[in-house]
Amino acid sequence: MSPLFEIHPRLKADCIHLGRFELCQLLMMNDSQYPWFILVPEMADITEIHQLSAENRHLLADESNYLAENIARIFKADKLNIAAIGNLVAQLHVHHVVRYQTDRAWPAPVWGKFTAVPYSDEQLAEQLELVKELL
Amino acid sequence: MSPLFEIHPRLKADCIHLGRFELCQLLMMNDSQYPWFILVPEMADITEIHQLSAENRHLLADESNYLAENIARIFKADKLNIAAIGNLVAQLHVHHVVRYQTDRAWPAPVWGKFTAVPYSDEQLAEQLELVKELL
Repeated sequence: MSPLFEIHPRLKADCIHLGRFELCQLLMMNDSQYPWFILVPEMADITEIHQLSAENRHLLADESNYLAENIARIFKADKLNIAAIGNLVAQLHVHHVVRYQTDRAWPAPVWGKFTAVPYSDEQLAEQLELVKELL
Repeated sequence: MSPLFEIHPRLKADCIHLGRFELCQLLMMNDSQYPWFILVPEMADITEIHQLSAENRHLLADESNYLAENIARIFKADKLNIAAIGNLVAQLHVHHVVRYQTDRAWPAPVWGKFTAVPYSDEQLAEQLELVKELL
């Protein structure tokens, strides 16, 4: 981990911390409308994927792939939406959103669409049970 | 190229074909509001990055990185937005959008935001001149 790395306060406030892979921390958005996961490479001052070293870019691609494959299966996704946007929080973070043709925002992207609906304690416990095999 | 591969008609209609890399075709959205490029891996029937082989995933990551690095420099981007969404066009394609804090949609994502404003012939000629070094 890069010595000055800290997860951006906005991501901390909006997400539940699930754990860490080799390069990235794994967060889950506290929004019960969609299974929504975020990878944050533990590197200070990085805002774009192309600022990572080739080795770390491949690690990010591998961790993204592992996450994508597993959440698609666990949640029986109709589609995944994978994106590095960062217009509001510049710290590099990569969204992995499970989408259903029946979800509230479909077919629009989820960003900036609806206010988050936090998980209830019971929903959160269920969700954590579903994803514990990721780590 | 996979024998049955064809670029989706909607992408063909919305984009200008710029050329091809080893794995992907390179398109530019015909929308003068943002410099907006799309990589389409030449593989039939692929809708998610994790359906690609490990080799092709790394190629895609490398081509995405090459494109990102260069368009960030050429267009002096404030931010890049890189995304595989595919809710409307399922064929795997990866958006690379150059964003400015002064662009019309900022800080919202561009997808589904405003109707495209096609390039004039003169604007298009200028844009093609700027990006010809990519290929």
